[in-house]
Amino acid sequence: MATLTLALDAMGGDHGPSIVIGALKRALKTFPEVHFIVVGDQAELKPLLAQAKLTDHPQVSLQHASQVVTMTDKPGYSLRAKPDSSMRVALDLVASEQAAACVSAGNTGALMTKAYFTLKTLPGVARPALMSSLPQRDGGTAFILDLGANPVCDSDSLFQFGVMGSVAAQQVLAVDKPRIALLNMGEEDIKGNDVVKAAANLFQQAAELNYIGFIEGNDIFLNKADVIVCDGFVGNVALKSCEGLAELLVGNIKANIEQHWLTRFLVKLFYRRLQRSWDWLKPDHYNGASLIGLRGVVIKSHGNATERGFFSAIEQAVAETQQDLPAQVREQIEQILLAQE
Amino acid sequence: MATLTLALDAMGGDHGPSIVIGALKRALKTFPEVHFIVVGDQAELKPLLAQAKLTDHPQVSLQHASQVVTMTDKPGYSLRAKPDSSMRVALDLVASEQAAACVSAGNTGALMTKAYFTLKTLPGVARPALMSSLPQRDGGTAFILDLGANPVCDSDSLFQFGVMGSVAAQQVLAVDKPRIALLNMGEEDIKGNDVVKAAANLFQQAAELNYIGFIEGNDIFLNKADVIVCDGFVGNVALKSCEGLAELLVGNIKANIEQHWLTRFLVKLFYRRLQRSWDWLKPDHYNGASLIGLRGVVIKSHGNATERGFFSAIEQAVAETQQDLPAQVREQIEQILLAQE
Repeated sequence: MATLTLALDAMGGDHGPSIVIGALKRALKTFPEVHFIVVGDQAELKPLLAQAKLTDHPQVSLQHASQVVTMTDKPGYSLRAKPDSSMRVALDLVASEQAAACVSAGNTGALMTKAYFTLKTLPGVARPALMSSLPQRDGGTAFILDLGANPVCDSDSLFQFGVMGSVAAQQVLAVDKPRIALLNMGEEDIKGNDVVKAAANLFQQAAELNYIGFIEGNDIFLNKADVIVCDGFVGNVALKSCEGLAELLVGNIKANIEQHWLTRFLVKLFYRRLQRSWDWLKPDHYNGASLIGLRGVVIKSHGNATERGFFSAIEQAVAETQQDLPAQVREQIEQILLAQE
Repeated sequence: MATLTLALDAMGGDHGPSIVIGALKRALKTFPEVHFIVVGDQAELKPLLAQAKLTDHPQVSLQHASQVVTMTDKPGYSLRAKPDSSMRVALDLVASEQAAACVSAGNTGALMTKAYFTLKTLPGVARPALMSSLPQRDGGTAFILDLGANPVCDSDSLFQFGVMGSVAAQQVLAVDKPRIALLNMGEEDIKGNDVVKAAANLFQQAAELNYIGFIEGNDIFLNKADVIVCDGFVGNVALKSCEGLAELLVGNIKANIEQHWLTRFLVKLFYRRLQRSWDWLKPDHYNGASLIGLRGVVIKSHGNATERGFFSAIEQAVAETQQDLPAQVREQIEQILLAQE
């Protein structure tokens, strides 16, 4: 029996609803306790569900939405002009508690604005943050936030991001006392800007948190911290730079291998060993950024996610919902704010 | 006959003066027109110069300095307490026009502070910026600035960085109309923070410049721009993150190869092809960040640079000096400021 309901925005992403239906099929087997509401244009979705033999599946229902938010819609415009978009309807299902979480691969800016507007932030949280998993050298995982929900942050926001990330690492990664670090230009106290320095002060005063200080860009994959805190501008640029470099480097290796018949041949012996070198990056497995700090679980999938990628985003939504992350965040933020009074 | 004089701070860097002397030996052959003043503790340097058979070399002179700036000295402290440090004496040689440029692998913060104090900025330049070469997918080079001299920037500074980078790309990279881009969270006009948006406005009004708009982190290696402009916090974190990832990825590949006798064996056939995949990153060849915007050429070498790396920093100093980059920057900044009046 379904004990949990998730809303899937089926119309977002670069590859259209077939990716979402493929991921759904996989999720139904993995999560027999979850009910899925597929949200989007029924004329498009009904044939896809029928094709996947999911029309009368007991864990699946279809919720029509007449509009679609495009990748180029501005957030304010989509909020005003598209009240019946699949994204908005999926978020409304969470706001009205008909669903516990929403997953969308749509326009990030529009999703953040709509989520903030419909779900509101938790008490004590000024701004939600976009948080993602970051693969670590030894195969572990860290959380990094913010990745672009907040281009400018004050020190209070950075502090709240640290608390939220810490709760997520406890609940989702099962880390006992998550190490929280601030991303900075250097490890010394005098480095950085005033906002980061003021945030460091706030962390130092919060005895409940395991704050370990500043870390630099070259440390973010080295398992030095479980939670890495930065403003959305820095986080977005740093992570995208790394994505760009990794893609290029792996692409180069593949291209160089294929240039010669001997290496093309050898690669068949060699491939799995080589593959392992970048497997830990697993972009598919790490897909799914959480919009944390809201009164509900909202997961943003990469726009160009594969079926496997969208499935990872669903997994993330299930994990956060099962742990009731919003309630946990609310509780810990309250405790810390009370302790500071 | 020497037509150009360079001052080398021999005491900076993690590996001590022997690296600098090794790089000097190489530079003497490559640049017969350059005279080098080696600055540092003569008790330590004399034996090294003798060992390298450079004691009476016509292109080399030794300038004693009794103090050394350590990697942990705070900038303000080193400025006040170490007036006879090798770094300071090397910069003073530039300020007094006895040398045209200075190269140091010492403490970045101290170098920036001392350089700003002794050399001052060019007219029309509010703040110097740390600028580095960035390898591009196709083997080309772009300049990125700032990388940490300015943790907080206003839009005027970002605009000046663009002008300075453009002059450097023209003079040093021989690019005709360098494409200038602002690093941002998205390509759309509405993305980013107010400083970046205001800087975009300034660039759009400067018809002399080839401003191409915003680029994202994943574009910085894709030869989309010749000059990439950002504040020092963002640039520092993004570049260090990429360095960390590249090191880890290449290290992983090597480790996976060495785990098995067959791949260890095959790698001998395979190595050069594989090597080529990350050769374009060439950290050694790209060593040498310019502190641009000052009344003199100052090049910062990586603290852990090899002999080859420090030589690249010397090359960068020679190139910028031969083109008289400070004079060129001064001229173009003046032209643009006049055009705006």
